[in-house]
Amino acid sequence: MKIVELRECTVPLQGNISNALVNFSSHSVSLIAVITDVVRNGQPVSGIAFNSIGRFAQGGLLRERFFPRLMAAPAETLLKTDSSGFDPAKVLALVMANEKPGGHGDRAAAVGGLELAFWDLNSKLAGEPAYRQIAASYGNNTVGETVPVYAAGGYYHPQKRLNGLVDELKGYQDLGFQDFKIKIGGASLSEDIKRLEAAIKIAGSSHRIAVDANGRFDLETAQNYARELAEYELRWFEEPGDPLDFELNRHISKAYVGPIATGENLFSTVDTLNLVRYGGMRTDKDIFQMDPGLSYGLTEFARMLGVIETAGHSRSFVYPHGGHMINLHVVLGLGLGGCEAYPGVFQPFGGYASGCLDGQGRARAIEAPGFGLEAKPGLKPWIDRLLA
Amino acid sequence: MKIVELRECTVPLQGNISNALVNFSSHSVSLIAVITDVVRNGQPVSGIAFNSIGRFAQGGLLRERFFPRLMAAPAETLLKTDSSGFDPAKVLALVMANEKPGGHGDRAAAVGGLELAFWDLNSKLAGEPAYRQIAASYGNNTVGETVPVYAAGGYYHPQKRLNGLVDELKGYQDLGFQDFKIKIGGASLSEDIKRLEAAIKIAGSSHRIAVDANGRFDLETAQNYARELAEYELRWFEEPGDPLDFELNRHISKAYVGPIATGENLFSTVDTLNLVRYGGMRTDKDIFQMDPGLSYGLTEFARMLGVIETAGHSRSFVYPHGGHMINLHVVLGLGLGGCEAYPGVFQPFGGYASGCLDGQGRARAIEAPGFGLEAKPGLKPWIDRLLA
Repeated sequence: MKIVELRECTVPLQGNISNALVNFSSHSVSLIAVITDVVRNGQPVSGIAFNSIGRFAQGGLLRERFFPRLMAAPAETLLKTDSSGFDPAKVLALVMANEKPGGHGDRAAAVGGLELAFWDLNSKLAGEPAYRQIAASYGNNTVGETVPVYAAGGYYHPQKRLNGLVDELKGYQDLGFQDFKIKIGGASLSEDIKRLEAAIKIAGSSHRIAVDANGRFDLETAQNYARELAEYELRWFEEPGDPLDFELNRHISKAYVGPIATGENLFSTVDTLNLVRYGGMRTDKDIFQMDPGLSYGLTEFARMLGVIETAGHSRSFVYPHGGHMINLHVVLGLGLGGCEAYPGVFQPFGGYASGCLDGQGRARAIEAPGFGLEAKPGLKPWIDRLLA
Repeated sequence: MKIVELRECTVPLQGNISNALVNFSSHSVSLIAVITDVVRNGQPVSGIAFNSIGRFAQGGLLRERFFPRLMAAPAETLLKTDSSGFDPAKVLALVMANEKPGGHGDRAAAVGGLELAFWDLNSKLAGEPAYRQIAASYGNNTVGETVPVYAAGGYYHPQKRLNGLVDELKGYQDLGFQDFKIKIGGASLSEDIKRLEAAIKIAGSSHRIAVDANGRFDLETAQNYARELAEYELRWFEEPGDPLDFELNRHISKAYVGPIATGENLFSTVDTLNLVRYGGMRTDKDIFQMDPGLSYGLTEFARMLGVIETAGHSRSFVYPHGGHMINLHVVLGLGLGGCEAYPGVFQPFGGYASGCLDGQGRARAIEAPGFGLEAKPGLKPWIDRLLA
């Protein structure tokens, strides 16, 4: 069994929306295929994945560095011991050869998408959904059938007013979502509070609403928001400051009684270790949101879990960034706290295939082999084009 | 005045050598040109720079993200207030639009090389060497004529023995170098000590020899090395552990009485802030080695200097990674501690143009406008090709 070809296709992300810091209209995602010489039903078995949402496609790095290293490797050096598939840890070690430590940025996303494609591939070779491969690989014997899922939205549109936010959240409710996240920090504190109160009213409880500042605030602004937000008893307060400003996070964890969530912009085990060491994260409430597709894939993500569990945190407090089908399998397979979903935005990657949402705030994976990306209507044409 | 075209050329780095962690034979560097509509002597005035040494070229990121953003910007939004050149801080802000915080890796090198090309351009527009532009921009009124320079070498070659190391260092002495850095961690501790003792014998004093582990060691190994190295009173002990493992650095700073050097793999102000906050760096001895070409350029590098100076460190303890002509101008212009040089390796970027080395352990810039890269023989053909 060997890799015949590696392919990447840069897919633009749909949506002229903004959080407190960035507009997503120029963002893109790398859709990646690992094509093997194994033929089933007249087609080569191929692993498909992408590098998550919210940053950029990595076609350049993949073609310049990572694809050539993988293609140059003798096939047997990448296989699992029993030859039933490819060993993602071996793939990771090989593509990272001669890369220096530090600098966990774009390459973490390039390698993340590539490593995840091997999980899709292995699952297809085994004829099972990816969450079962993941659970078996990491010794999780108690895989649930569904996981909690919340709708992430409430972005700042150029022309959207309070009514627009209300309509948006009602739309998510119609889809069966019960918990929601909205953006803060892209407007004044007083306007953000109005948005928050409108959202709480729709949701029926402040415990159902999380707010996300996307790393925008300096310490003083974060403290001002923390003071105002505290009385609402929210689901969580996400990324108050720069994701690497662990000192700011520690200050807010002391000042804000509710849960803090962060980690989506930490792309390595050592960065996660620093959050745990210095960020003041509380084991009884705070939320970790690292995203395998931006962080060298599932192998490195599992090491991050190891770091936070060693420090006394529970994986039930892990809600990976990235509301899409790959992370649904990751959450199910590893028994994490729950999933994000972007039902209205970030197409064709955001959201889930038909049948995944149970209409009561929980999600299940479909039973198609792999991540089941082929079952997501908007994504299928891109996969077909990639494999054509 | 406007930008007519942006170009990048990926140049392979010469040398099948290794440090404790990586082999450099596959490494590459982006040579970047900013071509303007200003014509002098029948040629467009063009800024030239590169993204330093030790990682990889960034042609993909430059062409996919950063070049298009810059070309889409109205020219006047990038100019200095007096229109005498382009404002590097405006260039940086513009190319980083809609980039999320965190993830300071490959993009920091792509943007670093690009931002530095504007310093070369501005200096050529002003008809002066870059160090004078840099000094004036950052209010340094006391620019020295020369700066200390040390020869970085002592890499692990596939076939090289102790004699090879001795010959290498003698060769650097013949070029006028008096201070040297050699690699450790790519062999056993006992073999590394033999290498170190051979190097000290050549240099005539242990104070002239620094050792560099390139981030390889875990805490226990770093402590073992620190114990053995302490008695030698070396120039410095560089990157004992992972560059982001600030806790390890703090432990070694407590255990090792001599200077520690680190920072070449920190690519942002916030990462540098974390080193200062958590790494145990001592204001009276420890060395910072951030490299503008890997760290979003000189604008961000100056912010890093601000962070370490605010914490009580002196810029005379800053020795940027990257032994090449760009950083010679940076060290001169900002009044930093000194320069690295790779006289034998990393061609065509490593080392200096004829006339830069004074033969007594110090270096000066040549008086050609800009960074003077055109005066470096091995580099000139690549620049000609880029501009052809």
